[in-house]
Amino acid sequence: MTRILDRIDSPKDLKRLRLPELRELAREIRETIIQTVSENGGHLAPNLGTVELTLAIHYVFDAPQDRIVWDVGHQAYAHKLVTGRRDVFHTLRTYGGISGFPKRSESPYDALDTGHSSTSISAGLGMAVAMELQGKPGRVVVVIGDGSMTAGLAFEGLNNTGHIRKNLIVILNDNEMSISPNVGALSSFLSRKLTGRVATRVKKELEGFFRNLPGGDQIVHILKRSEDTLKGFLTPGMLFEALNFEYVGPLPGHRLDVLIPTLKNVKELEGPVLVHVLTKKGKGYPPAEEEPERFHGLGPFDVVTGRPRRKGPRPPDYTQVFGQTMIRLAEEEPRLVAITAAMPTGTGLKDFARRFPERFFDVGICEQHAVTFAAGLAIEGLIPVCAIYSTFLQRSFDQIIHDVCLTKQHVIFALDRGGIVGEDGPTHQGQFDLSYLRLIPNMVVMAPKDENELQHMLYTAMVYRGPIALRYPRGSGVGVSLDWELKAIPIGRAEVLREGQDILVLAIGATVWPALKAAEELSSQGVSVTVVNARFAKPLDEELILDLAQGHDRLMTIEENSLIGGFGSAVAELLADRRLSVPLMRLGIPDVFVEHGSPAILRDKLGLTTPKIKDSILNFLSSEGPRLIVSPAS
Amino acid sequence: MTRILDRIDSPKDLKRLRLPELRELAREIRETIIQTVSENGGHLAPNLGTVELTLAIHYVFDAPQDRIVWDVGHQAYAHKLVTGRRDVFHTLRTYGGISGFPKRSESPYDALDTGHSSTSISAGLGMAVAMELQGKPGRVVVVIGDGSMTAGLAFEGLNNTGHIRKNLIVILNDNEMSISPNVGALSSFLSRKLTGRVATRVKKELEGFFRNLPGGDQIVHILKRSEDTLKGFLTPGMLFEALNFEYVGPLPGHRLDVLIPTLKNVKELEGPVLVHVLTKKGKGYPPAEEEPERFHGLGPFDVVTGRPRRKGPRPPDYTQVFGQTMIRLAEEEPRLVAITAAMPTGTGLKDFARRFPERFFDVGICEQHAVTFAAGLAIEGLIPVCAIYSTFLQRSFDQIIHDVCLTKQHVIFALDRGGIVGEDGPTHQGQFDLSYLRLIPNMVVMAPKDENELQHMLYTAMVYRGPIALRYPRGSGVGVSLDWELKAIPIGRAEVLREGQDILVLAIGATVWPALKAAEELSSQGVSVTVVNARFAKPLDEELILDLAQGHDRLMTIEENSLIGGFGSAVAELLADRRLSVPLMRLGIPDVFVEHGSPAILRDKLGLTTPKIKDSILNFLSSEGPRLIVSPAS
Repeated sequence: MTRILDRIDSPKDLKRLRLPELRELAREIRETIIQTVSENGGHLAPNLGTVELTLAIHYVFDAPQDRIVWDVGHQAYAHKLVTGRRDVFHTLRTYGGISGFPKRSESPYDALDTGHSSTSISAGLGMAVAMELQGKPGRVVVVIGDGSMTAGLAFEGLNNTGHIRKNLIVILNDNEMSISPNVGALSSFLSRKLTGRVATRVKKELEGFFRNLPGGDQIVHILKRSEDTLKGFLTPGMLFEALNFEYVGPLPGHRLDVLIPTLKNVKELEGPVLVHVLTKKGKGYPPAEEEPERFHGLGPFDVVTGRPRRKGPRPPDYTQVFGQTMIRLAEEEPRLVAITAAMPTGTGLKDFARRFPERFFDVGICEQHAVTFAAGLAIEGLIPVCAIYSTFLQRSFDQIIHDVCLTKQHVIFALDRGGIVGEDGPTHQGQFDLSYLRLIPNMVVMAPKDENELQHMLYTAMVYRGPIALRYPRGSGVGVSLDWELKAIPIGRAEVLREGQDILVLAIGATVWPALKAAEELSSQGVSVTVVNARFAKPLDEELILDLAQGHDRLMTIEENSLIGGFGSAVAELLADRRLSVPLMRLGIPDVFVEHGSPAILRDKLGLTTPKIKDSILNFLSSEGPRLIVSPAS
Repeated sequence: MTRILDRIDSPKDLKRLRLPELRELAREIRETIIQTVSENGGHLAPNLGTVELTLAIHYVFDAPQDRIVWDVGHQAYAHKLVTGRRDVFHTLRTYGGISGFPKRSESPYDALDTGHSSTSISAGLGMAVAMELQGKPGRVVVVIGDGSMTAGLAFEGLNNTGHIRKNLIVILNDNEMSISPNVGALSSFLSRKLTGRVATRVKKELEGFFRNLPGGDQIVHILKRSEDTLKGFLTPGMLFEALNFEYVGPLPGHRLDVLIPTLKNVKELEGPVLVHVLTKKGKGYPPAEEEPERFHGLGPFDVVTGRPRRKGPRPPDYTQVFGQTMIRLAEEEPRLVAITAAMPTGTGLKDFARRFPERFFDVGICEQHAVTFAAGLAIEGLIPVCAIYSTFLQRSFDQIIHDVCLTKQHVIFALDRGGIVGEDGPTHQGQFDLSYLRLIPNMVVMAPKDENELQHMLYTAMVYRGPIALRYPRGSGVGVSLDWELKAIPIGRAEVLREGQDILVLAIGATVWPALKAAEELSSQGVSVTVVNARFAKPLDEELILDLAQGHDRLMTIEENSLIGGFGSAVAELLADRRLSVPLMRLGIPDVFVEHGSPAILRDKLGLTTPKIKDSILNFLSSEGPRLIVSPAS
């Protein structure tokens, strides 16, 4: 029997279906998503949670004239399947295939490129305002999770929307999870778990109000006995209504028979509307329903068992080594504490959290707060480790400058997912961190060459006094053995791994081992390469670099970071400032956003694999010397 | 008669005073603040609004054991006066004098360095948590304005504080202003101007609640007639209580007899407490009470009239020229719209706002939202200009990357206060923008050499298609005449201002005229200098620079920006990548936070004035050539 999904080429085709067919379609979509993610990896639980919501939205609204904006975008697979991408869905997240996130260049149905959380209300409001000003028809519908709602940006968007009161439909997809279970006072508010304090206040206010009315005494008497009942009185609706939103809900998010008629009514409302929808992450796939956090985003897995599919044993992840080292260090150093922004598992801090619950802080999707909170902890003598992915720490740029570095607070930044991240694509690559951290005064910036050095660098950061960052890649370590004894690396000290004559290669972070391997392979071709593990993007080991540079007539830098303002740029600055003229070739990420695809493919395209590094060295050595412009000093 | 203030060497001395003496002290403090700010310039209205609050806090709490955290910090003058800085207060904001903001290195009573808004709750929470974990005595008291409360960071801090329920006293200094009158739905909430919609909802909920109680019918009957009365029902207190704060207030903020006993009670409370205090900006100085926005932060003025003191006529400010050009352009281009983050006057958009109210958006202190909102406007075909000070745009770093540049939206960033800002000090210098904007793919970064070029660059930005930024300095323009006809500058095209032989000087932005003047003066000394107005930090005019570099044996870059990753760094990258070896000297801001002081003094210290540029050129010309490491190609 053919699938209904096979007849859905655009949302128009949905509108011809009746309720039982829509339900069957939801089932088929879930099956397709589970199948594809089990092969390609991807976001599973959030996508399974929004299938009915997606169908209801496309049934009621008319995309692309109506703009559907998916916050974060990790719940848009069903949307992709019903907007013309069914036949390419198997290419999900592969190089050259479709993206795991909405992408304007991929489809006119994708109204906004997303990936980072909590941008949808602000962008949606901008779209709505612009459409109104220009008399364009259509509505803007924003879908945002309750986790994303905890970020300050979402609050700013809500507050501004309520202020200017434009037409905007915000659908709050409330599953009581962001990636991990939600934190924050707002989240208990949404789930109506209000405190007795609020009930008491409501009671008191009501008493005051009724006391002066005819018959008020009797009402006051009733109120005095009703505190418990009143606990349910202050609803989430009131919060949003106070911000000038019309509140609709809460709605059962998997009931098409409720969602469709309600959204039809909502479509007719003017001004800001908030539709509160309750969904279940992982809905329809029992392993994901049971472990929504593990099934949030994951690699290929076996559909029957839900277990990960992995080819043979692999070295431990950088993330794991970080997490284990944090525990070791915390045992020795009582001042060490850890902060995550809604990523206890992703950052490897889950075990730390269990072991040291008093010293672990999950602040929700609040990177700005995480950093300023860390500054406060440091001011009072603790040693906070902010474990935030490289790409998300971009959100704390000003807090790092203003709250941490200005007064040289001892805050440690542990940037997981530095460099190429891969399948999640341009919104998630950690391609800028060396550049944006290096330009901040008082900051130290490190990148370990492997998981063993990661341990030592974390220890180094702990015994240092001041702002210090270490960035390390996503995924498996190199497979080196892990030293038991941890040693502090002198700040700004590089390491010579191999000495040669023909060219000096300064590599940093994940590029060190590929560079070393390239050097080893070239030695059999008679090319003699000096390889230095730079370790620090700031401060540079200036004397070592200058000394070595004077003994070589070619210098190459290699980094998995933007070529603008990064490590190679630091070396170029150094050479210029010391008036040392050595031909310099800088390998790294050019001035583009790196697309999605497997890290191996991307590194190859970027020229950062061992064979590509070999080619670059050979090209460089065979190139002309510099064009010289020198005259003797006057 | 001696002043009471002269006997106050620390907050301890306050505690000996009785109420009438405290009131007299408040008067003396106001007088001192008005006197000093009238001479040195500074923040007036916010400081006058918090005199009694400051005295009450220091009367009740025991700083420095209790930590007093001032959000933004532009209301801490009274705090400085009663914490041992009375005798140096006249040096306020002058080079080497005391800072206009709290500064940990200045006094043990300054618990947190501030300058940017909305950091206090997050940092205060960190401090409170660290103190509790370590068993340190003392409370943390945070003072935050209602304007600062609109920023997402403040919301993140509140939400997290309510979640972990630590001891933290947040004093909401509510004057219904940030710098301009506040915007945002929250702000109407605070002032109890609730909508009829909320009242209706409350009524409905209450009806439902009472209907099933004995005697409920009568109550429901009463409710049906009481909608208007109910509008005042949902109080600000409920919002904060919903976030697990104990709410106290609203209190009259200039009544010491109310503030002191209330704060004494608050001091004994456990958990998060929010104290809502109503104050008047500019209190006690009629001109400031009448024009709190103009008296927020200002230069020297006449105390009697309140009029600015200026020495003779000055050229128009960059800010004014920006504002006027915006109006001219908007008349021609209906798609042009403007966004400010609570700075309609500071950014020069006040007249634009009056002229085009539908095309002007003041989003409150929400720089993140401002940028993502702009992205939404651009997606739907408008041309938004985000006018945000250089230092504050740091808060939108990720939004610029993720929401604007990733999809190449046509958003114009107008960065006022780029480079040295002066008296406001390190939190306000615009010293990083060329670096942090240049590293973002798809971004164009310009800096005009004068107010005339500012006009043309704004026009250039308007007719360009894509993300584009222009940064210009604080204060007076150069005094050049303003072209009537606006022309688009080709993207990435520099301008040769003067041709010479001895040295090539590439200057950008505010350093161009001083460089040109230096070149002119040097020509009389027989030194022949080529001067190029680079105009673009990205993209560079690569061919022009490379061509000229080959004709000179010294190259100098000059910028009012960090030497790390900035314009000079871009030139160093270019020379390296093209294997062109020219001795390069880069002038700019070294890797430090620039302290407060007059721009003239700071530019002198940084070597960015005409005489210092001359010195550098002469030194450079007399220095040795580069140490060369070159061998012929193998």
